[in-house]
Amino acid sequence: MQHAPFQPGMPVGEHPYGAPSPFMRGVVRRWLRGMLPSRLTNVAFTPLAELEGIITPNGLHFERSHAGTPHIDPARFSLKVHGLVDRPLAFSIDDLKRLPVVSRFHFIECAGNNSLNWRRPTTNAVQFTHGMLSCSEWTGVRLRDVLHLCGLKPGARWLLAEGADGAAYARSVPRELWDEALLAFAQNGEALRPEQGFPLRLLTPGAEGSLNVKWLHRLEVGDKPWLTREETARYADLQDDGTARLFTLVQEVNSVITLPCPEKPLRKHGTHRLSGLAWSGHGRIAAVDISFDGGRNWQPAQLEEPVLPKCLTRFHLPFTWRGEEMLLQSRAVDEKGNVQPTHAENLRVKSAKQVYHNNSITTWRVMPDGEVRHVRLA
Amino acid sequence: MQHAPFQPGMPVGEHPYGAPSPFMRGVVRRWLRGMLPSRLTNVAFTPLAELEGIITPNGLHFERSHAGTPHIDPARFSLKVHGLVDRPLAFSIDDLKRLPVVSRFHFIECAGNNSLNWRRPTTNAVQFTHGMLSCSEWTGVRLRDVLHLCGLKPGARWLLAEGADGAAYARSVPRELWDEALLAFAQNGEALRPEQGFPLRLLTPGAEGSLNVKWLHRLEVGDKPWLTREETARYADLQDDGTARLFTLVQEVNSVITLPCPEKPLRKHGTHRLSGLAWSGHGRIAAVDISFDGGRNWQPAQLEEPVLPKCLTRFHLPFTWRGEEMLLQSRAVDEKGNVQPTHAENLRVKSAKQVYHNNSITTWRVMPDGEVRHVRLA
Repeated sequence: MQHAPFQPGMPVGEHPYGAPSPFMRGVVRRWLRGMLPSRLTNVAFTPLAELEGIITPNGLHFERSHAGTPHIDPARFSLKVHGLVDRPLAFSIDDLKRLPVVSRFHFIECAGNNSLNWRRPTTNAVQFTHGMLSCSEWTGVRLRDVLHLCGLKPGARWLLAEGADGAAYARSVPRELWDEALLAFAQNGEALRPEQGFPLRLLTPGAEGSLNVKWLHRLEVGDKPWLTREETARYADLQDDGTARLFTLVQEVNSVITLPCPEKPLRKHGTHRLSGLAWSGHGRIAAVDISFDGGRNWQPAQLEEPVLPKCLTRFHLPFTWRGEEMLLQSRAVDEKGNVQPTHAENLRVKSAKQVYHNNSITTWRVMPDGEVRHVRLA
Repeated sequence: MQHAPFQPGMPVGEHPYGAPSPFMRGVVRRWLRGMLPSRLTNVAFTPLAELEGIITPNGLHFERSHAGTPHIDPARFSLKVHGLVDRPLAFSIDDLKRLPVVSRFHFIECAGNNSLNWRRPTTNAVQFTHGMLSCSEWTGVRLRDVLHLCGLKPGARWLLAEGADGAAYARSVPRELWDEALLAFAQNGEALRPEQGFPLRLLTPGAEGSLNVKWLHRLEVGDKPWLTREETARYADLQDDGTARLFTLVQEVNSVITLPCPEKPLRKHGTHRLSGLAWSGHGRIAAVDISFDGGRNWQPAQLEEPVLPKCLTRFHLPFTWRGEEMLLQSRAVDEKGNVQPTHAENLRVKSAKQVYHNNSITTWRVMPDGEVRHVRLA
């Protein structure tokens, strides 16, 4: 026997809140030493190579904060809404939960995802190329319902969303994004995790992760953007002439192959499955094409149902490998017709100086021994 | 200020695998002292009153085992397939993961859910009336693909699925269920939790939970059922004449209101939301109706998208409460036209002696002080 079956096991209810098997202890979020100067403003990446389907378990949702995770008692928390409104109001979490509630499956992706590889491939792990990407079922109330209760004044065009963290992290949100936005208090069924904004976060489906302000305790309605540090010095796209494009908020169509990948080399000749994730801030994924030869030939991958808007979509393609070198690529297309670009195509519309919003096609070189390396084609 | 904002928080990456906020420590699985004789064969219930949406976080998936949870090293584990097959084969977890993989959102419900209340209401908490019910995105390979590799011999009509737990828990699965069944190795993106069958379980969408054999290490193909203890003495429906109906495997259309409920009384007069879950082993939920007066008048609830087959469906209905007594009921209808019965209607087709498969409409009595009690109407 490979294992000893038929022994009495761990009693039922031993872990009132369960945990993964001890054999899975390597499946964790990881951060990169030296990438950012402080543990308080840093990133812990989702281990995409170890995940299946589209849901990210809450314990592995990527983490990005600018002053660490605050410790907030929900019973003493409230959301204040003021500015260009008829009735400035404060809402406790219980107040919000009595309003109409909706649940939506959406990805969140940091604008800086894959930015370490914008100039050249510097990380050789899908956890560090694309791991600032996670997907959950989010539950909350509609932002527009809360604003309606407060009554918008004429001229209301922007709002400032401010977190209660040590950075007083704050972002300006344009009116176009209000209709779909949620004030979310739950992810994957349970209360938000502390690192995800417990007890309340803004959710702006399809927009860059940093706009989804966590520990959300204040909304100020105004007629123009606030131009905070986090939308001018950061999360803005530097151009060749030294100016910056501001408020490029939508995460463009993108995809990545998670199997095989640098962490998941090929160990045997024979049949394998190729698998990966595609997403777009513009809506649903329409198609994903796969190339085994660096973009010369393409074939369609199968998309796993349900394909939901502004949500991760899992794709699959079976293939056979006999030890030949391969250049694996995935190219996603969304329902608006946006096609994921190559790096060269991206440089025609974006500056090589920018660090955010890198949705270029990624290439994995599979070596004759089955190892997988992150490369850029000439 | 209700809380002290703008303090430096917990460093990023402090918890490589995250956990809920300490303020949510009451949201846990619970077991009922005295319900079953041993902690090794017992149940820990999902806290449905605390959950939103349709996904159950893995740490809160209900737990049912017959000899505790075994500790299994996946590297030393294999699934053996034998019996009426041309090629008896053993598959490691890695072997299975190279086959075509699919992900599906499905509920699992124990056949004994709500059985404590079959004769009369004995539990006053939705966690204990309906908490043997959870829902996940399950990932695995198709049972039929594995059987195809082994080659079915003529006469193959049943298979025995055996777990590696201390009970050698085993169930006969009829051929009608093979097409949709999965050999699942992941739930909500990550490896199965130990209590859910790590590293491999059978998933039979829509069938009673106990058929979804956990720690699955052996499949034997045969031409008739094995009539194991767990499908004759248990998980069979005792009839008035002392005989038992065997293999009543499909979980019938069902629903329950999770807000308000005994654990979530009404604390204020004014507008509230009613929310709950509906499901059917026959397919999609088509409609859920709500009564505030014990079934005299009904109005349709809103169903949250996506509505998926053999999956939980979340429903909502806003209402206003001014302190009046109410008798809250939900009644689900599935796409096959099955309508959730009252207890009296159920007794016309089922015996009062049976304990499993109680899908009767549940009644919550809301008292003038807002407290909620589980009652049965005459």
